[in-house]
Amino acid sequence: MKLPERITIAEVGPRDGLQNLPDSVPTEIKLTLIEKLIAAGIKNIELTAFVHPKAIPRLADSADVASAITEKYRGDASLLFYALVPNVRGAENAARCGINTISVVISVSEAHNRANVNRTVAESIAGLKDITGAFPDMNVRLDAATAFGCPFEGDIPFERVLSLIDKGAALGVREAVLCDTIGIADPMRTEALIALVRSEFPELKFAVHLHDTRGTGLANSLVAMQCGITEFETSIGGLGGCPFAPGAAGNTATEDLWNMTERMGVNTGLAGEKLFEALDFVRDHIKGDLASRMCKVNAAACRP
Amino acid sequence: MKLPERITIAEVGPRDGLQNLPDSVPTEIKLTLIEKLIAAGIKNIELTAFVHPKAIPRLADSADVASAITEKYRGDASLLFYALVPNVRGAENAARCGINTISVVISVSEAHNRANVNRTVAESIAGLKDITGAFPDMNVRLDAATAFGCPFEGDIPFERVLSLIDKGAALGVREAVLCDTIGIADPMRTEALIALVRSEFPELKFAVHLHDTRGTGLANSLVAMQCGITEFETSIGGLGGCPFAPGAAGNTATEDLWNMTERMGVNTGLAGEKLFEALDFVRDHIKGDLASRMCKVNAAACRP
Repeated sequence: MKLPERITIAEVGPRDGLQNLPDSVPTEIKLTLIEKLIAAGIKNIELTAFVHPKAIPRLADSADVASAITEKYRGDASLLFYALVPNVRGAENAARCGINTISVVISVSEAHNRANVNRTVAESIAGLKDITGAFPDMNVRLDAATAFGCPFEGDIPFERVLSLIDKGAALGVREAVLCDTIGIADPMRTEALIALVRSEFPELKFAVHLHDTRGTGLANSLVAMQCGITEFETSIGGLGGCPFAPGAAGNTATEDLWNMTERMGVNTGLAGEKLFEALDFVRDHIKGDLASRMCKVNAAACRP
Repeated sequence: MKLPERITIAEVGPRDGLQNLPDSVPTEIKLTLIEKLIAAGIKNIELTAFVHPKAIPRLADSADVASAITEKYRGDASLLFYALVPNVRGAENAARCGINTISVVISVSEAHNRANVNRTVAESIAGLKDITGAFPDMNVRLDAATAFGCPFEGDIPFERVLSLIDKGAALGVREAVLCDTIGIADPMRTEALIALVRSEFPELKFAVHLHDTRGTGLANSLVAMQCGITEFETSIGGLGGCPFAPGAAGNTATEDLWNMTERMGVNTGLAGEKLFEALDFVRDHIKGDLASRMCKVNAAACRP
């Protein structure tokens, strides 16, 4: 089995994990969580989303969160903080808070893009053009949502994934994230899509964002690693989920991916004990019942 | 990715899943569950364990369960019913109930064997010899427990797994099950152990029993399939667990493995709709909060 020596686990819990919770999380709790994640060795963190508070009320404190963190850790070049933005205004707000890397989400599926942002895919690409035009120095990650399947359209032809990435690349995008938004990918499809995009776009950097909705998060991550992917977006505790399947599991849990990869000798740079401190904090202050498997192992071992 | 065309999913829920539940499950409920599993297309089922009721009170009705099922389905040669037995007396009771295939569990780890059955490994192997001697026509599956790691001893050298299987083979065993009893295997270790045992014992049939305690159940199953394994013991709903990590997830869920493999075109012979009927029955009559990922997806979709 051929695996990378090292992978980057990018934490998206503060954004993807907190945006759909039934209760609001106080800004102070968010900041403490992010600090604990950094203490555990996480280097890449999606801090928040700069969207209208009516669209995502749970992230209405995006400017406070991003400013506090970018100021506190200014000067530490090993850390990469990024945020989701939907439009030029969001990018402006992000830049004002010290954010130099942004995620722009566009669904490969028309129906999902319509449901998610009420735009056609073409309109979203035009919006991406506005952002890259207005912020030529901003590092833009294109999140290709529903790349492995859509709750409305089912399987998405790979040609449409290629087409979206191609249009992003033409606008200056240098990083794309293949998102299994509803956790419907299987290992064979994961292998096929990753091999295809890497061969079609050798100049781009690819990451994956694989939800664990159907329990395939780690199996798909394993295959992605074997295909040469070295950056994985995950969420502490497995926080997050899909609004189209309430109650189902969300993101692949950071600690579940950490456990599997470290056991295989793939270095993540994370300190397990500190990671579990962050996990305990999530369980105690944000959400008690987490989908993460390692959370339950840890709780069983520590609190018999 | 090279995968088998077809795999056998062997259901161990009625034994491994029900033995540790806090509440007793009425015999009638067990029988209905088994009938629903058969209706879903499951062909191989571990029905129960013929052990002393003081050791496993939840399976004190083993004779009733096994007799009722073997009588009801007598004549259907496509079905394979088996049961766990710890000694000659258990094998006698199993045979009396129409069971021709038995599982004998021996841990590779001395400490785990002691904790599990209060015997040394050598004493357990002597017990296996008594069974194969008394029942030369019985088909014996040797369950090599803790083959991938032990809660007391940690990693177990592969040589000890080989040694146990070798001793079993010398006693006439033709099938062995590599059991990840505490769900601690990773894909690389899974690949290495399976490749080793298949090359050392080409005349034996191997199955795997991979717990999902740390979320690696499907990733390890994928690797096992790529290594040529075609029989997987799983549990409906992910029922079961490890007494050494209370609250942690148990077996890989039957429906989670079904979903992943069928998506990849690997035939399981199971009918999804009927499988979810069995799953709903488990949730409604046996245990409400199941670790299975597909259970939550199904519940979210059907009951918004």
